Amino acid sequence: MNKGRVEAFTDAVVAIVLTIMVLEFDVPSEPTFAALAENASYLIAYLISFLFIGVAWYNHHYMLTLTKHITKRIYWLNNVWILTMSLLPVSTAWAGKFIDQPQPELFYFIIFLLWAIAYAVLSHAIAQANVDDHPKIAAKIQAMPAYRIHANVFFWMVAVIVVFLIIFVWPPLSMVFTVIELILMAIRTPADSDKIAE
Amino acid sequence: MNKGRVEAFTDAVVAIVLTIMVLEFDVPSEPTFAALAENASYLIAYLISFLFIGVAWYNHHYMLTLTKHITKRIYWLNNVWILTMSLLPVSTAWAGKFIDQPQPELFYFIIFLLWAIAYAVLSHAIAQANVDDHPKIAAKIQAMPAYRIHANVFFWMVAVIVVFLIIFVWPPLSMVFTVIELILMAIRTPADSDKIAE
Amino acid sequence: MNKGRVEAFTDAVVAIVLTIMVLEFDVPSEPTFAALAENASYLIAYLISFLFIGVAWYNHHYMLTLTKHITKRIYWLNNVWILTMSLLPVSTAWAGKFIDQPQPELFYFIIFLLWAIAYAVLSHAIAQANVDDHPKIAAKIQAMPAYRIHANVFFWMVAVIVVFLIIFVWPPLSMVFTVIELILMAIRTPADSDKIAE
Amino acid sequence: MNKGRVEAFTDAVVAIVLTIMVLEFDVPSEPTFAALAENASYLIAYLISFLFIGVAWYNHHYMLTLTKHITKRIYWLNNVWILTMSLLPVSTAWAGKFIDQPQPELFYFIIFLLWAIAYAVLSHAIAQANVDDHPKIAAKIQAMPAYRIHANVFFWMVAVIVVFLIIFVWPPLSMVFTVIELILMAIRTPADSDKIAE
Repeated sequence: MNKGRVEAFTDAVVAIVLTIMVLEFDVPSEPTFAALAENASYLIAYLISFLFIGVAWYNHHYMLTLTKHITKRIYWLNNVWILTMSLLPVSTAWAGKFIDQPQPELFYFIIFLLWAIAYAVLSHAIAQANVDDHPKIAAKIQAMPAYRIHANVFFWMVAVIVVFLIIFVWPPLSMVFTVIELILMAIRTPADSDKIAE
Repeated sequence: MNKGRVEAFTDAVVAIVLTIMVLEFDVPSEPTFAALAENASYLIAYLISFLFIGVAWYNHHYMLTLTKHITKRIYWLNNVWILTMSLLPVSTAWAGKFIDQPQPELFYFIIFLLWAIAYAVLSHAIAQANVDDHPKIAAKIQAMPAYRIHANVFFWMVAVIVVFLIIFVWPPLSMVFTVIELILMAIRTPADSDKIAE
Repeated sequence: MNKGRVEAFTDAVVAIVLTIMVLEFDVPSEPTFAALAENASYLIAYLISFLFIGVAWYNHHYMLTLTKHITKRIYWLNNVWILTMSLLPVSTAWAGKFIDQPQPELFYFIIFLLWAIAYAVLSHAIAQANVDDHPKIAAKIQAMPAYRIHANVFFWMVAVIVVFLIIFVWPPLSMVFTVIELILMAIRTPADSDKIAE
Repeated sequence: MNKGRVEAFTDAVVAIVLTIMVLEFDVPSEPTFAALAENASYLIAYLISFLFIGVAWYNHHYMLTLTKHITKRIYWLNNVWILTMSLLPVSTAWAGKFIDQPQPELFYFIIFLLWAIAYAVLSHAIAQANVDDHPKIAAKIQAMPAYRIHANVFFWMVAVIVVFLIIFVWPPLSMVFTVIELILMAIRTPADSDKIAE
C-alpha cells in the first residue's frame, strides 16, 4: 500500500484524538481562578494522555519509517491500534473527572492495556512482513524496547496484578504507574530512532 | 488535478468523520461501570462505522493509487462520496442510541446505501477516465469486488428487500446484515491491493 | 515558503471546517423520522455550504498548483481567506435553523461576501507574485472565471442590491441566489483546471 | 526523524486547534443580529488567537524548513510547544467570555507566556542540533526576531510587569498588548523567510 497515505491518515486521526481531548475542559462560567481550578484533575489526565500519544506516535513513526511493506494485514492491525486510541478521549475524560475513584481509573488502564496489546500485535506483523526480504529491518523492529516490553506476557501479568492491587488502595496510583511506564518508553527508544529518514 | 492534494483532503475529512464519532460517547456522570455501560449500544454502532470507514478507505486508496487522472468530474463525484460519508456520525449516533428501533436502523442503512451508490458512480468515473490511455488500470478498477458488488443493481434490490423485511422483525438484524457485507468487502479485495505503490 | 506545507495546512483547516458543520445536526431524541425531519432546514444549509467549500477548494487548488511563489503576503492573505471560511459553520448553523428569517440569511450572505472579497484579493496577490518571472501563470490566474467574477465590483454591487431586495421578500431566495452563483463557479472553470499537475 | 511527518502532525494539530475555537461561537437562538452580537467579545478573542496561530505557524514553518535534523529532543520540545498551544481554545473561550475581567485575561496571558517560553526553548534546541554540521542554519535560527525576543529574559520581565500593572486597571489592555506583540512578530520576520523552499 501507499505508505505515505497510511501514515498521513494515521497522523490525522492521532492529531484529532489529541485535540478533541481539549474539548473536555470546561470553560468556567465565573471569571475566577477558583472556577478554573475545577479543571485541575482533568488537566492531570490530559497531560498523561498527551504524553501517551507522544510516546505512541514516536514508536509508530519509527516502525513505519523502517518498514518496506504495508500489507492489508498491517493496514487492519493499524486500524485496530487507531481504534483503541480513539477511545482515549472518553477514558481520559472519565478518569480525569473521577481521579480518586477506582472504576474510572481501571477503565483508563484497560484502554491503555488494549492499546498496548494492539501495538504489540501491529509491531509483530510489521516485523513479519519484512523478515524475508529485509531481515535487518525486522530485527530492528523486534529489538525496539517498546515492542519488547509490550510483547512480554510476563510484564503484563505483573502490571495487571500491580494495578489491581493499588487501584483499590488509592486509585490515582494507577495513573502514577501509567506515567512511569510512559516515561520509560519515552526514554528507552532505539539508538537510531532520531537519525532515520533525515 | 494534483492527486496528492485530493487524496490528502479526502483523508483529512475521513479521519475527522471517524474521530468526531467519538464525541457521541457520553462521559458517565457516575464513577461506575454501570453508568459507563449505558454507552454499550452506541459502542456497537461505533465499531460498525469504524469498520465501514476502514473498508471504504481501503478501496478508495486502491482506486486513487491506480488512477492516472483526477478530472473535475472525479473531483465532484469524490465530493459526493465524502458528503454521504459525512452523514455517518449522525446516522451512527441515532442508530446506536436506538439500536432496537426500526426507523433509526433504516436511516443507517439508507446512508450506507447512498454511500454505496456514490462509491459505485465514483469508481465508474475513475475507470472511464483511464479507459482510453490506460485500459489495464480501468480493467483493474472494474474488476474490484467492491465495485462489482456496488454496481450490481440486482444485489441492491435484494439487499433493500431483505433489510426491509428484517428491520421490522428485529431492527438490529439490519446492522448484522451491514456487518456481514462490510466483512465480505474487507476480505474480498483485489490480489494486488496491498502490493501497489510500495 | 514551502508550498506543500501551506497547502496541507489550508487543506486541514478546510476539511475540519467542512466536518464540524456535521456537529450541528441534532441527533433526534425520538426514534422517528418525524424527529429526524427537524433537521431538514439545516440539511439544506449544510448542502449549500458543502457545495461552497467544494467550489472554494477547487479554485484554490488551481491557483496554488500554478503559483511558483508563496510570499509572506500571500501567506497572510491566505490566512484571511481561511478566517472568513472558518465562520461558515456559524453562519450555516444560524441560517439553517432560521431559513425563513431575513437576518440569519443576510449574515450567511455577508460571510459569503467577505469570503469572496478575501478570495479576490488573494488571487490578485498570487497573480502579482508571478507576473514578473512567470507572466503566463499570472495571466492564467487573472483569466480564471472565479477571479474575474469576484474582482468585478459591478457584479458585487448588483449582487448586494439583488440580495437586499429579495431577502426581505422571502429570505430563502438569497440562498437560492448563492446556490446559483456557486453552480456557475463550479461549471465555469479554466479549461486546463483538471489537467494540471497530473 | 522523518521531517515531513513531524511537520504534517504538527500542522494537523495546529489546524484543529484553530478550528475547534470556532465551536465556541454560540449559534443564536433568536433570528436577530442583537442575539448574534452577544458573540462580539468572543469574536475579538478569536481574531487575536487566529493571529497568534498565524504568527506561530509562520515562524515554526521557517525553522523546520531550515533544520537538517529532527532529534528526539526536538520532537519532545515540539510536543511541549503543541501542548501549550492546545490550551489556546480554553483560554480564548474564557478570555472572550469575560473580556473585562482580570483573571481570564491573565490566564490568556499566562498561556501566551508558556507558549513563548516553549517556542524559545524549541528554537534553541533546533539551533543547537544544527550548530556543528550546519552552522549557517543555526545562525539563521538564532537571528530570527521571534527567537531573539522570546529568548530575551529582560523582555519577559518587562512584559510580565507591564501586563500585571495594566490588567488590574483595565483588563482588555492586556489583549491590546498581546496584539501589538503579535503584529510586531508578524512584521519582523527574517528577510529570506518567504523565499526558502520555493
